[in-house]
Amino acid sequence: MSHGYAGTTDQYLARLRRIEGQVRGLQRMVADGDYCIDILTQVSAAQSALDSVAMCLLKDHMSHCIVAAAQESDEAARIKIDEATKAIARLVKS
Amino acid sequence: MSHGYAGTTDQYLARLRRIEGQVRGLQRMVADGDYCIDILTQVSAAQSALDSVAMCLLKDHMSHCIVAAAQESDEAARIKIDEATKAIARLVKS
Amino acid sequence: MSHGYAGTTDQYLARLRRIEGQVRGLQRMVADGDYCIDILTQVSAAQSALDSVAMCLLKDHMSHCIVAAAQESDEAARIKIDEATKAIARLVKS
Amino acid sequence: MSHGYAGTTDQYLARLRRIEGQVRGLQRMVADGDYCIDILTQVSAAQSALDSVAMCLLKDHMSHCIVAAAQESDEAARIKIDEATKAIARLVKS
Repeated sequence: MSHGYAGTTDQYLARLRRIEGQVRGLQRMVADGDYCIDILTQVSAAQSALDSVAMCLLKDHMSHCIVAAAQESDEAARIKIDEATKAIARLVKS
Repeated sequence: MSHGYAGTTDQYLARLRRIEGQVRGLQRMVADGDYCIDILTQVSAAQSALDSVAMCLLKDHMSHCIVAAAQESDEAARIKIDEATKAIARLVKS
Repeated sequence: MSHGYAGTTDQYLARLRRIEGQVRGLQRMVADGDYCIDILTQVSAAQSALDSVAMCLLKDHMSHCIVAAAQESDEAARIKIDEATKAIARLVKS
Repeated sequence: MSHGYAGTTDQYLARLRRIEGQVRGLQRMVADGDYCIDILTQVSAAQSALDSVAMCLLKDHMSHCIVAAAQESDEAARIKIDEATKAIARLVKS
């Protein structure tokens, strides 16, 4: 089955590779003994980049999976919306 | 100059390597066409792990750099606290 | 027009009144000169309560407005999902 | 004993009264049947206002209580920093 983000897999991979690079950059900063506050600034940057990826995934998910479920039945929509709400709550807390 | 986290560099590196692994895991999930909500759950896990690293860095920073500045002078403390407050505000927003 | 939360207006009002009480409690704590960390703990409690209200509103909104839009047309759904994604991004950042 | 925010009690009270007004505004919006997304926007605004109050309290706390503890002894500083780190972690999660 194809998912909401199927048409944009390459863009997600490119963004995740950049985030992987940011996390490797953090390791270099720690190994080099960089200043704590500069490392914290880069941690915040990595978290913002992960937030952006999450928002895109969520939008793709609503646009495809939730819309398809709503067009199938109210019950199918209810299940998808329960699931999405829990995922959003985890993002809000993380 | 040695920083707040100097004594625990290896632990930070181990945690950041695990987070790098989580981000590579996200790439595999996207490449494999995993379900959006499962990917979002892993994004939240990576963000919680980054949050934990940030909290430890911040605690080490306060325990060493801010305490040392406070023992040096009120003005030195003021500068460090301004800087730390901005870093915390970025974490709260990210 | 009736909105997603129409059937549960009273519950939302009860929760918001409790949050109003928490914010008045914060004013009493400040006026009484309570300890900063105790005040911060209550600020976090008020924010968690607001987060819960936001999650419920969002779920009601998806269950009613987005499902109705999806059942009307793909274009109607697209507009609602754009709007909801922006609201979720604001919650994640706030 | 006077706390970090003692000199600015009135400013904190003014800000908290504005936030109380925002929460009452939310109750009016719900009672009037306003659109869910508009209510969510106001919830985010109230949360940002609470975040700002929290950041100011934290800065005042570090500037007074933590600096005073650091000037007293390393052990006194350690206790205050443990406590502050837990409060910051709650803010990051809330």
